[in-house]
Amino acid sequence: MEFSSKLLENAVYEMSQLPGIGKRTALRLVLHLLKQSERQTEQLSSALTVLRSTVRFCTNCHNISDTELCEICANPKRDGTLVCVVEDIRDVMAIENTGQYRGKYHVLGGKISPMEGIGPQDLTIASLVNKVKQGEINELIFALSSTMEGDTTNFYIFKQIEGLEVRTSTIARGIAVGDELEYADEVTLGRSILNRVPFEGSLRTN
Amino acid sequence: MEFSSKLLENAVYEMSQLPGIGKRTALRLVLHLLKQSERQTEQLSSALTVLRSTVRFCTNCHNISDTELCEICANPKRDGTLVCVVEDIRDVMAIENTGQYRGKYHVLGGKISPMEGIGPQDLTIASLVNKVKQGEINELIFALSSTMEGDTTNFYIFKQIEGLEVRTSTIARGIAVGDELEYADEVTLGRSILNRVPFEGSLRTN
Ligand SMILES: [Zn+2]
Ligand SMILES: [Zn+2]
Repeated sequence: MEFSSKLLENAVYEMSQLPGIGKRTALRLVLHLLKQSERQTEQLSSALTVLRSTVRFCTNCHNISDTELCEICANPKRDGTLVCVVEDIRDVMAIENTGQYRGKYHVLGGKISPMEGIGPQDLTIASLVNKVKQGEINELIFALSSTMEGDTTNFYIFKQIEGLEVRTSTIARGIAVGDELEYADEVTLGRSILNRVPFEGSLRTN
Repeated sequence: MEFSSKLLENAVYEMSQLPGIGKRTALRLVLHLLKQSERQTEQLSSALTVLRSTVRFCTNCHNISDTELCEICANPKRDGTLVCVVEDIRDVMAIENTGQYRGKYHVLGGKISPMEGIGPQDLTIASLVNKVKQGEINELIFALSSTMEGDTTNFYIFKQIEGLEVRTSTIARGIAVGDELEYADEVTLGRSILNRVPFEGSLRTN
């Protein structure tokens, strides 16, 4: 693409660095902003930079939170001995949306993925194992998506806590294998939480 | 969607104001930025705000330009008596890309669209008519997309310059009716410029 303006070219380039946004789409979005008020662009830019520079994570569950403890962790009505292990904040939002779950969460921040260079040390696994070692948790519910990376991550954590006093379960696979958790409908996802099964029983036999 | 952080919610809201970006996509994009360096977000924000606050338009053709005259208008080898009328900068880029056109452009900034509340006064039509009246232009090539709005805009301009000393043509319709100009392949688009036909002959008879 040949641009008539370096400033335009630069804005399109930066926008196209976002995942799933090609050069054409980036140009469309930037031209849209040029047709809106300057305030619109300022609000977008400022919302992004303020979030990025001041983002905080709950010290207990590692979910994104503006306070030291997130609302869920700070809620005494939530059962802290039951912990649902998820990949990121979108999964917390999806499960909360079912209204079926009264325990707490542990947000890993991703899945183990050798392909993408993500190892256990890039996730919050050590902090989770530590909580289990301190005997604070009765049951861990693995709720990662049922992909190769999700299975690998589940299994890695399972081996780390083997022999410790904790039950493990995975959400019932009412959700089709390979589907992303966050796109599941509320009923299916809610049911899969209630019908969770012992982790050992869910290990693939092949 | 229930967010665990107001800052996150605000960033997702602002991102979802962009056309074609729903809440889910916005959340995905914002979470992506949180996984990148702070510098990445700063560069995106700054590129957008700098462009938005300092954007300039070529005083002759109204294309986006960092200088008073764009490169095309400032190029003495380009034929200023031949002017291709287009909707926006994407069409200029598409036509330039064919390497077939040696005239100049006039960027309208949109199409007349009563549905979207866009009238002739919102476009750069007066400036175009003025240039024609000054006798600077021998031929106008209408290269708007062949939609109802494109046809309406062509016809409106055609009526404004009726009786003046200027030829009018439209690009040959090798491009399927209803298709957007910017997605046409280079060969088809280049040929449609070379085989342009007198505007009167292209008027729909129904
Ligand atoms: Zn928390
Ligand atoms: Zn120009």
